[in-house]
Amino acid sequence: MPAYLDNSATTPIAPEVLQRMEQVRAQTQANASSVHRGGQLARVILEESRQQIAASIGAEPKEIIFTSGGTEANNLALKGVALQQKLSTGDWPTLLIPRAEHHAVLHPAEFLEVMGASLNMMEVDHEGRVAPKELQKCLADTAISGKPLVSVMHANNETGTINPISQLAATAHQAGGIFHTDAVQTFGKLPFNVRELGVDMATLSAHKIHGPKGIGALFVSKELELEPLIHGGAQERNRRGGTESPELAAGFAMAAQLCAERMEQSREMFTQLNNQLRQLLQAIPELRIITPHEGALPNILNITFADAERLDGEGLIVGMDLAGVAVSNGSACTSGSQQPSHVLLALGLPAAQARGAVRFSFGRFTTQQDIAIAADALLAVIQRQRSRSSER
Amino acid sequence: MPAYLDNSATTPIAPEVLQRMEQVRAQTQANASSVHRGGQLARVILEESRQQIAASIGAEPKEIIFTSGGTEANNLALKGVALQQKLSTGDWPTLLIPRAEHHAVLHPAEFLEVMGASLNMMEVDHEGRVAPKELQKCLADTAISGKPLVSVMHANNETGTINPISQLAATAHQAGGIFHTDAVQTFGKLPFNVRELGVDMATLSAHKIHGPKGIGALFVSKELELEPLIHGGAQERNRRGGTESPELAAGFAMAAQLCAERMEQSREMFTQLNNQLRQLLQAIPELRIITPHEGALPNILNITFADAERLDGEGLIVGMDLAGVAVSNGSACTSGSQQPSHVLLALGLPAAQARGAVRFSFGRFTTQQDIAIAADALLAVIQRQRSRSSER
Repeated sequence: MPAYLDNSATTPIAPEVLQRMEQVRAQTQANASSVHRGGQLARVILEESRQQIAASIGAEPKEIIFTSGGTEANNLALKGVALQQKLSTGDWPTLLIPRAEHHAVLHPAEFLEVMGASLNMMEVDHEGRVAPKELQKCLADTAISGKPLVSVMHANNETGTINPISQLAATAHQAGGIFHTDAVQTFGKLPFNVRELGVDMATLSAHKIHGPKGIGALFVSKELELEPLIHGGAQERNRRGGTESPELAAGFAMAAQLCAERMEQSREMFTQLNNQLRQLLQAIPELRIITPHEGALPNILNITFADAERLDGEGLIVGMDLAGVAVSNGSACTSGSQQPSHVLLALGLPAAQARGAVRFSFGRFTTQQDIAIAADALLAVIQRQRSRSSER
Repeated sequence: MPAYLDNSATTPIAPEVLQRMEQVRAQTQANASSVHRGGQLARVILEESRQQIAASIGAEPKEIIFTSGGTEANNLALKGVALQQKLSTGDWPTLLIPRAEHHAVLHPAEFLEVMGASLNMMEVDHEGRVAPKELQKCLADTAISGKPLVSVMHANNETGTINPISQLAATAHQAGGIFHTDAVQTFGKLPFNVRELGVDMATLSAHKIHGPKGIGALFVSKELELEPLIHGGAQERNRRGGTESPELAAGFAMAAQLCAERMEQSREMFTQLNNQLRQLLQAIPELRIITPHEGALPNILNITFADAERLDGEGLIVGMDLAGVAVSNGSACTSGSQQPSHVLLALGLPAAQARGAVRFSFGRFTTQQDIAIAADALLAVIQRQRSRSSER
């Protein structure tokens, strides 16, 4: 059993989630849109799941749209609002997006740019954070069209850096804008209340919180209209067509509930594991910690090496894997591309250091032993790479 | 345990599918984009599943894009091709769609019309079939823009009527068009070979063939480019972002395999059940069978009543349900809307008869006993409604 330290890519499903899904499957497998009792039961399970997820973020059930996952939810948020404006006013809104966003936000934004929207990229600081002043500047600088649409992730998936969402949302609102946050990395890990944060839309995902793959959700404020991304049946109040899976929804709701119940406990555990790992990594010369010590998720630690140009980034991950430790170099969605992470470049890291980065990410099932094994493995792999490099 | 005769809405998951999904879950739950061994294993499972599904329709693996289901696949087909043309040529293609299509095709087509595409609706005959001549006429009549995009469902989800797909595809190609078919109702039930049929795109779904909800696929000919519907990571060869579920994909592949292995046997069984039901329903006066006896799926039987204006359509479904029989009035996706089915209206049925329609649909787990119970229940419910109606 390897030490799985790639929980920001995806998490193993919790036994309670699995149990809940099996329970639902035994109760009904009917179509939640069917009139008969099996269908009605499916509908009840779906709506109870929606209610639980809504409650966990301080939203109303009708403000939750189930999607196939975080990427679809981000696409729905950006395209849905942009299209709604285009179709109702004739103009595309201006989009404001930080350079360090996930591709699931960057790529739909770039698509909208091709369609005719203005896309303004915001800079991030050396820790990957978007300053409210930067947003203010961008909102003032631009020939803004329509209601500007601002999308800033709650915490960065590669560095764990937390953005000042409530300030950013307030800044966007002052300029008459709409604010979306991709909260996939923070939902279930930080207290997340859409009213307190003041966001208009937020993206959630199940498989990042020990829930099933194949389901996520978009919170959409009841004040906000959007054009569907997937047109079809009347599901999700006419905002997302397609037969719903009560089983996946119930698993998602259970995963969210478990996270909420154990949030404080998990945070303490993550902080301890983080401190343990930071301490053990001090034994490795030239190691640079990318993730800030303050204002970051405690379950992510991203590091690199001052002598990264002498190292083989992909080899680090493979070497760790051979030693029984699953980690990643940046986002799973861009793994294997050999391109340095656009996120780490946006932080100002040299390309070699971005290529040589290693992201450790913890989940509820991570142990102190996993951390010890990982630190040992990294030390061994680095020593091997360095001695090979100096022999050349 | 009710007699479940609503398999065109959704099917119960097959035990072998469930077993396969559990097996995958035990093997790996990693992200298929991760570099480490867990991720690689997830990738292998995903690609093997893709290969199985491709093989089952005579396609190459790279021609299969996994989606969240049939509705997303239909949206990807229509919007993906239309956007690709718009972005590469500046013009939207003309869309040609029969009136009797599912909302999962009609509504994305209507959205594209709002965006600027021309949408030409094709008539269907009294059995719900699109004649190649009708398509020819529509292709000739119109000020066609770009490569026209034709989408005709393989079999109708309400009546089971099978369309002459290979002729329609050939007709579309003669006019330089692109041909898509929503094969959600036929995949796994009829032999379905994309090369023999000559289609450029085809929509498949897992939950209609005793597979899991939350996954489907679009076959896209390797000759054809399309713009993604969901932009994000590089998954699905850059054609559909979002973390894949190897578990759902493997379940889908197993469901497809079971259908393929048992296709002949299932068809015989469905035909027997269909004959049994048709015979039993002869006992009910004024009953009209909508589904044609020839050229329709044997697992669907849609009926209505000559005196439908005296009956309560929704009450029929509820009455059947109370007697332990799950059936539907048209598509689950529009259930409860009280609107008469647009499909049955397109066939030329009076609104009252469309409202009073009852669709029986069989799956692999349907028994002769289910059919007997259903026929008895319908007779009883109809008698009750008629005697109540004549007392008024």
